[in-house]
Amino acid sequence: MSCLWMSLAGLVSAQELESPNGNLEMEFSLLENGTPTYTLTYKDKQVIKESKLGLDLKNDEADLFNSFSQADVETSTFDETWKPVWGEEKEIRNHYNEMAVTLTQEETGRKMIVRFRLFDEGLGFRYEFPQQKELGHFVIEDEKTQFAMSGDHTAFWIPGDYDTQEYDYTESRLSEIRERMASSITANISQTSFSPTGVQTSLMMKSENGLYINLHEAALIDYPAMHLDLDDEKMIFESWLTPDVNGDKAFMIAPTHTPWRTIMVSDDAREILASRMIYNLNDPIAIEDPSWIKPMKYIGVWWEMITGKSSWHYTDDFSAVRLGETDYDSAKPNDTHGATTEHVKEYIDFAAEHGFDGVLVEGWNIGWEDWFGHSKDYVFDFVTPYPDFDLEEVRDYAKSKGVEMIMHHETSSSVRNYERHMDEAYQFMKDNGYNAVKSGYVGDMLPRGENHYSQWLVNHYQYAIEKAADFKIMVNAHEAVRPTGVARTYPNLIGNESARGTEYQAFGGSKPNHVTVLPFTRLQGGPMDYTPGIFEMDISTFSPDNDSHVNSTLANQLALYVTMYSPLQMAADLIENYKRFPDAFQFIKDVALDWDKSIYLEAEPGDYITVARKEKGSENWFIGNVNGETPRTSRINFDFLNKGQKYIATIYSDAKDAHYKTNPQAYEIKKVVVTNKSKLSKLSVPGGGYAISIIPAEK
Amino acid sequence: MSCLWMSLAGLVSAQELESPNGNLEMEFSLLENGTPTYTLTYKDKQVIKESKLGLDLKNDEADLFNSFSQADVETSTFDETWKPVWGEEKEIRNHYNEMAVTLTQEETGRKMIVRFRLFDEGLGFRYEFPQQKELGHFVIEDEKTQFAMSGDHTAFWIPGDYDTQEYDYTESRLSEIRERMASSITANISQTSFSPTGVQTSLMMKSENGLYINLHEAALIDYPAMHLDLDDEKMIFESWLTPDVNGDKAFMIAPTHTPWRTIMVSDDAREILASRMIYNLNDPIAIEDPSWIKPMKYIGVWWEMITGKSSWHYTDDFSAVRLGETDYDSAKPNDTHGATTEHVKEYIDFAAEHGFDGVLVEGWNIGWEDWFGHSKDYVFDFVTPYPDFDLEEVRDYAKSKGVEMIMHHETSSSVRNYERHMDEAYQFMKDNGYNAVKSGYVGDMLPRGENHYSQWLVNHYQYAIEKAADFKIMVNAHEAVRPTGVARTYPNLIGNESARGTEYQAFGGSKPNHVTVLPFTRLQGGPMDYTPGIFEMDISTFSPDNDSHVNSTLANQLALYVTMYSPLQMAADLIENYKRFPDAFQFIKDVALDWDKSIYLEAEPGDYITVARKEKGSENWFIGNVNGETPRTSRINFDFLNKGQKYIATIYSDAKDAHYKTNPQAYEIKKVVVTNKSKLSKLSVPGGGYAISIIPAEK
Repeated sequence: MSCLWMSLAGLVSAQELESPNGNLEMEFSLLENGTPTYTLTYKDKQVIKESKLGLDLKNDEADLFNSFSQADVETSTFDETWKPVWGEEKEIRNHYNEMAVTLTQEETGRKMIVRFRLFDEGLGFRYEFPQQKELGHFVIEDEKTQFAMSGDHTAFWIPGDYDTQEYDYTESRLSEIRERMASSITANISQTSFSPTGVQTSLMMKSENGLYINLHEAALIDYPAMHLDLDDEKMIFESWLTPDVNGDKAFMIAPTHTPWRTIMVSDDAREILASRMIYNLNDPIAIEDPSWIKPMKYIGVWWEMITGKSSWHYTDDFSAVRLGETDYDSAKPNDTHGATTEHVKEYIDFAAEHGFDGVLVEGWNIGWEDWFGHSKDYVFDFVTPYPDFDLEEVRDYAKSKGVEMIMHHETSSSVRNYERHMDEAYQFMKDNGYNAVKSGYVGDMLPRGENHYSQWLVNHYQYAIEKAADFKIMVNAHEAVRPTGVARTYPNLIGNESARGTEYQAFGGSKPNHVTVLPFTRLQGGPMDYTPGIFEMDISTFSPDNDSHVNSTLANQLALYVTMYSPLQMAADLIENYKRFPDAFQFIKDVALDWDKSIYLEAEPGDYITVARKEKGSENWFIGNVNGETPRTSRINFDFLNKGQKYIATIYSDAKDAHYKTNPQAYEIKKVVVTNKSKLSKLSVPGGGYAISIIPAEK
Repeated sequence: MSCLWMSLAGLVSAQELESPNGNLEMEFSLLENGTPTYTLTYKDKQVIKESKLGLDLKNDEADLFNSFSQADVETSTFDETWKPVWGEEKEIRNHYNEMAVTLTQEETGRKMIVRFRLFDEGLGFRYEFPQQKELGHFVIEDEKTQFAMSGDHTAFWIPGDYDTQEYDYTESRLSEIRERMASSITANISQTSFSPTGVQTSLMMKSENGLYINLHEAALIDYPAMHLDLDDEKMIFESWLTPDVNGDKAFMIAPTHTPWRTIMVSDDAREILASRMIYNLNDPIAIEDPSWIKPMKYIGVWWEMITGKSSWHYTDDFSAVRLGETDYDSAKPNDTHGATTEHVKEYIDFAAEHGFDGVLVEGWNIGWEDWFGHSKDYVFDFVTPYPDFDLEEVRDYAKSKGVEMIMHHETSSSVRNYERHMDEAYQFMKDNGYNAVKSGYVGDMLPRGENHYSQWLVNHYQYAIEKAADFKIMVNAHEAVRPTGVARTYPNLIGNESARGTEYQAFGGSKPNHVTVLPFTRLQGGPMDYTPGIFEMDISTFSPDNDSHVNSTLANQLALYVTMYSPLQMAADLIENYKRFPDAFQFIKDVALDWDKSIYLEAEPGDYITVARKEKGSENWFIGNVNGETPRTSRINFDFLNKGQKYIATIYSDAKDAHYKTNPQAYEIKKVVVTNKSKLSKLSVPGGGYAISIIPAEK
């Protein structure tokens, strides 16, 4: 393989690079016409066939994808270990070999660097545009980065879309994407697809020769999010950037660079999950003292609105609201408003009783009567509570109970309005003791014509994160662009949605194996506020008009607290449902949020994931197993435990007759003693799983 | 005439209204299909023939322009006198008869009110949408307000454009607009025309039967600016709203209303100039204590950049700037940067010596190297001075001299960026003793795809004004939407450009009669920062590469301080040019900024304007006369002066052989004694005029 390029006609130069362990090898070459290309192999198996690199510029005869000659190559090695503020490990090693290829265009005098970083788990590369007279401002019309696949892989994909990531994954051959696209595009409030073979990153694939390949990006800052468009004859993916309102992709000012394009690869699926390559490609932390950033376990006034049991809005009197003019005080309250002072106090009581850090309240502020669907500009002010929500009283009550309130900022995608109110809204939070905000971007964008993942909006989400950091506020942004490891630099970004979350279990249900895919895809870029912990799968028991079914067993729901890593974990179900299952609820109370170490024990995308994690600063371990559609016996051993130490393992697992559809609440809880010699065989039913807490029995 | 409607077929109802003095009469009727219409007469002459009213809604079968029936008519009379914070008079009478016609659509149940206010000088009307279940959010696709002209009038028009108002006026028959459109559209940095018969308001016309008619709008708030598109066969103008990026016009939420559509009419052109109807149609002042709002006379580091003598930018090193990253400290300064500490101190010295209130400095802050033309987002931060401008030193020096510094915020139309920095920028101003800001919106808009006069931007300009009021900051916004009397409500809007200002005299020149049109058009909505006072008409004398000529005599330049009313008046020329003409400069030093009374003595659009104004709180008077292309002898008397009082009149006038092109600096200054019996005959040459200061000779 390493000689293949020698036989290619027209090759005028070539550069090789190996990963630190030698398993990965990449080559950079220029075609005869000066187009840059690269290839990637893993243990001598082809991962990326010859693939072109470059960019189309707007209104510019001299594009940046051919006529290059190679001016310089610099190689180097980097090896550091850094400590994340929160994460799956207390330390992360960042080890790669780097090759920076400086390219020049003789005609234009322009210079571009392609920088490759080859890790043991994969390759990252980006385009860099140094300061130069010949290239100041430029507009990217298209990024033409190719990822040429070596075969018709099996892929776990969601439809490419400029406005939503909230799709179920389709598992298919690459060649089947086209025929399965239409059925994969399910309805959403705001959605814009662009190609019958367009898919989103992070894209997870399996090759016939046993490779697990993942395509994504890292450090997406002030650039449009990248999709992938497949040439399904040649099996070549090409980058497809989210356009702005005029169809332009990115406005650039040199010196600058693109985000990293990433290719992770292994013959062991667990290594994909264990990789921290995406984080490593991001800049180190930019917050000097991050001591105020803390993982949180929380409950909230949310699932009751999602399921239709109660409402965000306060009154049915108004067909439209003009903030500051509409008179709420004389409006007739409806009977369904969730965020009332009394009701929130019940949540605070429950949180205090069961050791939760926080309580989220949605629908607390005026404006929800016409909150989306109207392209409304001044939709919320983020500081004015409804008449039946006494913010001061709630604040003081929560404080007296040792519980933190979590703020909610639904923007309805009116981002100018959000930016206008952001300072005041953040200050209002701090003045009232709120340290974390869940923000939302439901509906079509304002500025109108922009999309959720265009440069304009990527810039906005980052602005919101950085400004929040100034106020020492943690951000959990929903419907924002999928994360790409930016939380390394700004760890106050403690969560994102940016995928199909638990809410869809109340909107018709998600595929039962959804949670066996997400860690391979969406979670590569950062944690997800997936909001697990649903105990009542038949929603109609408490919300009669909603016949949606949660496609998961109760044990699977517990396992998610371990398998879906996040420093922010919600117990999403209603208090009344937790009260019915206090023994199972105990796991949610016990499970840790932050970790010293994570060991992926078993993993196969779409089928199962089993992970063991050691609680940060403690000897407690927690294990989670989630299972797809096929019943399966998980077989693990406990050799990661301390030698000679006895532990009490509490195993929350599916009952034998459990099934996500027909018998989801059938679970068993067993307490056993385990040591590092112990082994476990455990059946996980369809849509099932298990969760284990492991506590040292004695010193 | 008042019986004409009786003969119209299909008329199902009609309502009449008279102006307080009975000169104007209007009628409202519904056509048989339920379309509202109106007519207007002045002293029994037809001003507006039967014209339709209504709106097209987007995605809505039930539009708001037919199928109406009349549910109610309310008439009333209003008469108040209010005191403006600054203005041409110390008191303004607001006197009108009002008719509010409530219309309902049976099919939809929708309700709309057309409210007419008939003043002695004209008619204002608007559409109102009361709170109702049947109409909450709606999108205006087109406003279909007609203004049916009674003949092929002579019009003073500029091309309709979504992005600029900076055109010379074309004087032509309405029927000639189409053929003269192309030559009337001169180049501009940002411009978007839309129709070969599309023109802007305020539109000034003269009818063959001796009427002066003006079409404009008042109280443009959160709605797109209105243009007029002419059906040049039927001579019917129809409203043409500035669209947003998707072609939509306005996003509305009931209860709400449109701006007022205004038709001023008189058989005496002076009455158009004397009318305060536009202000009267705006809401009363919204600022509780406006004592901090003060007229200002100022000089500034500006004309030298406009003419090319010096530069806004500091260095020629950079083809592009990244604020916060580009290293200015190690950049090589060019030799042309205007805003240096030393140079600004010269301006401060001159201002102090000659009694100016303020000094404006442009190009003081980093970023000007690539300030427009690149659709740049983060173009300025509004707080970081160039290395050669010591803001603190300048601030302290100005303070020690009793001179106020005027801030400059060029936004380059990157309005998101401006809004992001606005709080900090305004606070920075206050921290450094700046109480007034000149803001600019050069170049194409960001958000991209929006235009300068779309609803999004109209909303922004208003946001900037209201936020400035919170900081007690006065605003002079250039390239913003033309004013529509909003300064009654927010008198901290002390100026706008929004027309072709003096700068064009350095960009090739303006028509010599331009200033005889502007008071009839642009100034109807509010004051203009026209920046008069140019003494050196041959710009090449100090900026050798610029061969532009200022098409005005020096005496005309002096007259502008009186004829172009503004509470903000610049002496725009270079200090060196003022030093050459100290006797003429004396008028600029003497002339008042705020007035008790204004008397329009002579007026004909395109030909001449002569106005006398009494200084506020003083017995001093100032007179200005500006003349168009034709030499003319102005004949005025001084009967407005106090009986029996002797005054010293200093007359600054064109020399006999003066001419705007060939001999612009030929002026004469004479001092004479005048009383209220005095008369004056004075020749004004082409592009000429005269200015007079009248000071009581004794008590």
